[in-house]
Amino acid sequence: MTSTIIKGIGVSEGVRMGTAFVYAPLKLAGRPERKTDAPDTELEKLRQAKERCLEELAELIEQTKLKLGEEKAGILKGQISFLNDPTFFPPMEQLIIKEGWSAETAVCRIALQIAGILEKMDNAYMQERAADIKDVGSRLLAQVLDHQGARLADIHGEVVLIADDLTPSDTVQLDRSLVQGFVTRIGGKTSHTAILAQSLGIAAVLGVGAGLDEIRNGDWVILNGSTGECYVRPEEKVREEFLRLMDSERAERERLAGFAARPAATTDGFRVEIAANIGTPAEAEGLLAKGAEAVGLYRTEFLFMGSPSMPGEQLQFEAYKTVAESMEGKPVVIRTLDIGGDKELPYLELPKEMNPFLGYRAIRLCLDRQELLRTQLRAVLRASAYGNLKIMFPMISGLGEWRQAKAIYTEVRTQLEAEGAPMAEKVELGIMVEIPSAAVMAHSFAKEVDFFSIGTNDLVQYTVAVDRMNEKVSYLYDYFHPAVIRLIKNVIDAANAHGKWAGMCGSMAGDRLAAPLLLGLGLHEWSMSPGSIHKVKETVSGCSHTDCVELAEQVLELETPEEIRGALTAFLDARQ
Amino acid sequence: MTSTIIKGIGVSEGVRMGTAFVYAPLKLAGRPERKTDAPDTELEKLRQAKERCLEELAELIEQTKLKLGEEKAGILKGQISFLNDPTFFPPMEQLIIKEGWSAETAVCRIALQIAGILEKMDNAYMQERAADIKDVGSRLLAQVLDHQGARLADIHGEVVLIADDLTPSDTVQLDRSLVQGFVTRIGGKTSHTAILAQSLGIAAVLGVGAGLDEIRNGDWVILNGSTGECYVRPEEKVREEFLRLMDSERAERERLAGFAARPAATTDGFRVEIAANIGTPAEAEGLLAKGAEAVGLYRTEFLFMGSPSMPGEQLQFEAYKTVAESMEGKPVVIRTLDIGGDKELPYLELPKEMNPFLGYRAIRLCLDRQELLRTQLRAVLRASAYGNLKIMFPMISGLGEWRQAKAIYTEVRTQLEAEGAPMAEKVELGIMVEIPSAAVMAHSFAKEVDFFSIGTNDLVQYTVAVDRMNEKVSYLYDYFHPAVIRLIKNVIDAANAHGKWAGMCGSMAGDRLAAPLLLGLGLHEWSMSPGSIHKVKETVSGCSHTDCVELAEQVLELETPEEIRGALTAFLDARQ
Repeated sequence: MTSTIIKGIGVSEGVRMGTAFVYAPLKLAGRPERKTDAPDTELEKLRQAKERCLEELAELIEQTKLKLGEEKAGILKGQISFLNDPTFFPPMEQLIIKEGWSAETAVCRIALQIAGILEKMDNAYMQERAADIKDVGSRLLAQVLDHQGARLADIHGEVVLIADDLTPSDTVQLDRSLVQGFVTRIGGKTSHTAILAQSLGIAAVLGVGAGLDEIRNGDWVILNGSTGECYVRPEEKVREEFLRLMDSERAERERLAGFAARPAATTDGFRVEIAANIGTPAEAEGLLAKGAEAVGLYRTEFLFMGSPSMPGEQLQFEAYKTVAESMEGKPVVIRTLDIGGDKELPYLELPKEMNPFLGYRAIRLCLDRQELLRTQLRAVLRASAYGNLKIMFPMISGLGEWRQAKAIYTEVRTQLEAEGAPMAEKVELGIMVEIPSAAVMAHSFAKEVDFFSIGTNDLVQYTVAVDRMNEKVSYLYDYFHPAVIRLIKNVIDAANAHGKWAGMCGSMAGDRLAAPLLLGLGLHEWSMSPGSIHKVKETVSGCSHTDCVELAEQVLELETPEEIRGALTAFLDARQ
Repeated sequence: MTSTIIKGIGVSEGVRMGTAFVYAPLKLAGRPERKTDAPDTELEKLRQAKERCLEELAELIEQTKLKLGEEKAGILKGQISFLNDPTFFPPMEQLIIKEGWSAETAVCRIALQIAGILEKMDNAYMQERAADIKDVGSRLLAQVLDHQGARLADIHGEVVLIADDLTPSDTVQLDRSLVQGFVTRIGGKTSHTAILAQSLGIAAVLGVGAGLDEIRNGDWVILNGSTGECYVRPEEKVREEFLRLMDSERAERERLAGFAARPAATTDGFRVEIAANIGTPAEAEGLLAKGAEAVGLYRTEFLFMGSPSMPGEQLQFEAYKTVAESMEGKPVVIRTLDIGGDKELPYLELPKEMNPFLGYRAIRLCLDRQELLRTQLRAVLRASAYGNLKIMFPMISGLGEWRQAKAIYTEVRTQLEAEGAPMAEKVELGIMVEIPSAAVMAHSFAKEVDFFSIGTNDLVQYTVAVDRMNEKVSYLYDYFHPAVIRLIKNVIDAANAHGKWAGMCGSMAGDRLAAPLLLGLGLHEWSMSPGSIHKVKETVSGCSHTDCVELAEQVLELETPEEIRGALTAFLDARQ
């Protein structure tokens, strides 16, 4: 077999190589239908298969929680509820008892029937549920047939996984220490598989189509998760070239690590604070060593999503205390519960919404169900005795919401004082600026808040009216849109005018291309994923603040994202 | 029986009275199951029932199209597709043939089974589909049982309709000349029933809960669609009071009609243009007599929604020509296709989206499927020979989109010139300002466009990040949000700075409370639903522009919607 290159959609960065493991799960459709003479035996087989599925799922859920957190485990919990759903399993039993079909046929028929109804609804959400039904049906079928072949649990060496598609329950089973990457026939940038690949840190090329048929079990495969290219059975010199590429990527990472311990200051001494975004207390460990000077965004919702019921005050207190102590007195900005939108919390029984990004979420929910906010504020205030905690309210759209949240904070504080609880003397209160109305009104807010943190991800979504997860329009999502830049400037200017500080915790803060512009606009605190810290520190160290201020003035005259990107690229290129 | 007052949610304005017609359709659940000895007869009965349902629906669809337009008829078309769906009708036949159930039982079982699966999916969209399935199942059952009782077609006198709930297919059957209003047990402000009531112009009070049991067939009922109050069996003096109220409402309408022929000018001579929003060519008839000086927004999507396939150039041309001629040389702003979001077009096969308001719609769709835009622009340009047409592009978020749209316009125009088609020498091109980024960048746009029209409905939605149809957060939807006012000012200022004109076609333009502020900000063109024209003209005539400019300056200092409403209310109160 000769070497070949196939092309798909690169959905997570990195070059990886390994031998191909071709995974082909059981299909429900097209199996010959079979009756039985021994319905009792078949019924027993079906029931045992269900029990084994439930055991298998329970174990997978435990593993997934450990590897990926509670949120991802929720995908598998959905399978358990399907297995226990009265519309799913009992009709299978009926087909065996009443009509004498085999367990195999009963499973296929019912799962395909329900999936068929859902698929006909012609709706993306329904199609996903149909896929879930087929997925759990296929799992049940494998148990009925005692099918052992090509199970993901059989992966032992370092492999690249090859499949038509990977279901959510497949991907959560992957051992990231063994699976170097995956290549699938279908899927795209915003598919479930892509999102899981990114969170697992696995390189992935999706949607290669017929190209997939080029790959045989055991083939040597190199995949480039950035460009979407896969080299199948590459020649020796291609392999060597990629090994050199991987080596140089490693060397570059080591070089950048040298910036960890250095402050982020321009050549002419303008100093900014580099902070990290975290989701769990565990992520705060070792942050100082990586060069973070603060936690600029602690997303507390993961604490809530990782729990089967509302986490109590004590549990929250311990989490916040842990983060406060890990950061050894450096600032930690705790964002109050930002749930709703695309982040669900089963025990809150949130309504399904037509446009969840424009719906009942974050502070809107917390001002409606105040017990949530009060408990969280109590926990943060008690933990404030152990470090330098600040509180930030998400999705603030107007002064009314901010004042209401602040009033609740004051009540909670007064109550805790009466109880004699130890607390920090001053806890700064700020808001996320992620709704255009808050950015426009920044000068009014700046009189009252202690700080701003600009959430560029949502701010761009609302300012440009685009859901960045929607592949048909995501081309419009761009934080270099001139309107976004003007709103960011307005927020920073408002903070400066009132002696407050302005930070940023969206992905723009971790983009080195944006760094000179943000320096020029005078952004005080930059919060990013820990992996970006070294590169941004390097970029800041290579710029002069005077040049950046001039650059920012030029950029504010530009009228399209393309012109702005061009100006920023030229600025950095001239300094390399 | 004594008189009583029950309270629900008023979802459409107006006081109405009439005798109660209690409507209770057949229920699928809880019917005793029955086998048959003559399956062939039952099968025939079922098949004939289906045929009669299809005939009934075909007739209803025709009536609905005439009364309410193609969009509403789509609800009934969905019922036809369910009847023809392989998961719906064939399983009923199988139950009769294979298991010997009666047609009645077969219909109930299958409809409830499919609805049950959908209902279990715990999702608002699914629950609606489940209701649709039950609705069509109930229609089929009525035919199977040859059930004649309590059909909506039996309404002959002037009545107030009383029901647990009204399904979409019920409400479209209502004869608006007979049905004065309706009162239902369930439903709320954004329910399907509410939206239909508003478009039918029927007063409605929904969600009265157990209060519904107070009403008996033939009771006299007065309902107030604004306050949500229903007077059941009111005493004579209450009836007289409401008759007086209805009389005085009528007198007020007649008084205001006196403003139709007068120009909209302030006491100190500041003149603005009052225009109307329309959806169909028929709505342009008689507009001049109602006092409209222009069509400020012609929503062409209704032309597309009213057609089973893409309307061709000639059909569009005739529609645009009709409007141009009806307006006798007065300006007509034609908005290019604004489809997507909550407006679907079956033959375009648009993708279902997670957040349709942030998705693939309007100009985004038209720049992707350019043949749509080219055909429409050809039709508008050809019609421009017959009046004063202007073209407006919706959902523009950045200069790139506008420039692309304009380039297509220029190509189309050049092509038509080559063909020798008669056209107006100059057709103004403008943009809807409904995305925050466009409002922020208004000064850049003003250099290139001929005009702006501010679409406040969407602009508020995006600026404040709130879906106004979502009952949990609609309290945040307010065009008096100070950020919205600042953005509106920016757009008007930009237009003035470059000698262009700025209009407004959102519902704010028809709100008399907003009028003094909009006068003060210098808005040039005000486009509203025709019913608001007289009131707004009256309000404008009662204000001095100098006072309004001062008011606008004060309002721009205010920081909450409540303060702004307060200032505007005080201003108008002082002038009454």
